[in-house]
Amino acid sequence: MEKKDLPKKEYCIIFVNFQTTDKKLLPRRGTGKGYRMVELDFEKGEGLIPVIAQDYETGEVLMLAYMNRESWLQTVKTGRATYWSRSRKALWVKGETSGNVQTVKAILVDCDLDTLVLKVEQQGGAACHTGYRSCFYRKVSDGEMEIIGERVFDPEKVYTK
Amino acid sequence: MEKKDLPKKEYCIIFVNFQTTDKKLLPRRGTGKGYRMVELDFEKGEGLIPVIAQDYETGEVLMLAYMNRESWLQTVKTGRATYWSRSRKALWVKGETSGNVQTVKAILVDCDLDTLVLKVEQQGGAACHTGYRSCFYRKVSDGEMEIIGERVFDPEKVYTK
Repeated sequence: MEKKDLPKKEYCIIFVNFQTTDKKLLPRRGTGKGYRMVELDFEKGEGLIPVIAQDYETGEVLMLAYMNRESWLQTVKTGRATYWSRSRKALWVKGETSGNVQTVKAILVDCDLDTLVLKVEQQGGAACHTGYRSCFYRKVSDGEMEIIGERVFDPEKVYTK
Repeated sequence: MEKKDLPKKEYCIIFVNFQTTDKKLLPRRGTGKGYRMVELDFEKGEGLIPVIAQDYETGEVLMLAYMNRESWLQTVKTGRATYWSRSRKALWVKGETSGNVQTVKAILVDCDLDTLVLKVEQQGGAACHTGYRSCFYRKVSDGEMEIIGERVFDPEKVYTK
């Protein structure tokens, strides 16, 4: 999504001074009311930032994915976690196939403005395409991996072609 | 650190079949006893994987940093979180300057073997170089950032030259 494609009357940016840890309001682009947008630093990661999805109630880390600017805008606008699929090179509304969407409850921004934590409500109880509740379902134990996660669904039944 | 530089008698690798979610034991390289190593997928991220440091007691996400293979080996060997600094292009023992080291309590591996969660005990109470307990000390609220974190130390006093 190019800037020109965004609805003019719903779009303005809060510029952030990257040199300080405090936000600094500079003149806004755009004219309208509507939602405002925190500007993140997508440059360091060549257009992508890592995003940690965390269960908003239990604090469990569910997955890590990436966002480009378009994903970020769409996530804020829709309230549903929307990532950028590096393998498919496409916008990825989490759960669009499985139904296991993530409703965003809070967004935390890191000190460098280049990483996010999304506190989410995970629909369907599982974030991982393998059917486990969290993608981090294995623990390193004495040089091997031990499965500690809980399997919520059978991926063969969910991802049918 | 090249493989040839590793002590032969303390080094062997468990090969992991990337096509399945279950580990598959293949013949090990190396001969010795000593610690074993889970092999991660560093290729996708051009030698680096993202690592989420999470407070082992509260579940709070403290920071995200990166590891190369050398950092990974050193973290497992020493039990202290050791990252790769992308800006300094150097191995980064977290807390080596500030004293705020991270003692590793558990290591979780994701479904793709390319992201880690480190459950850590954060010495000094703060992970962020800004003095906040977590790097994620700001919350997006109505298009602006609101500080919600707790400042534990004054960075000007800790990072003296």
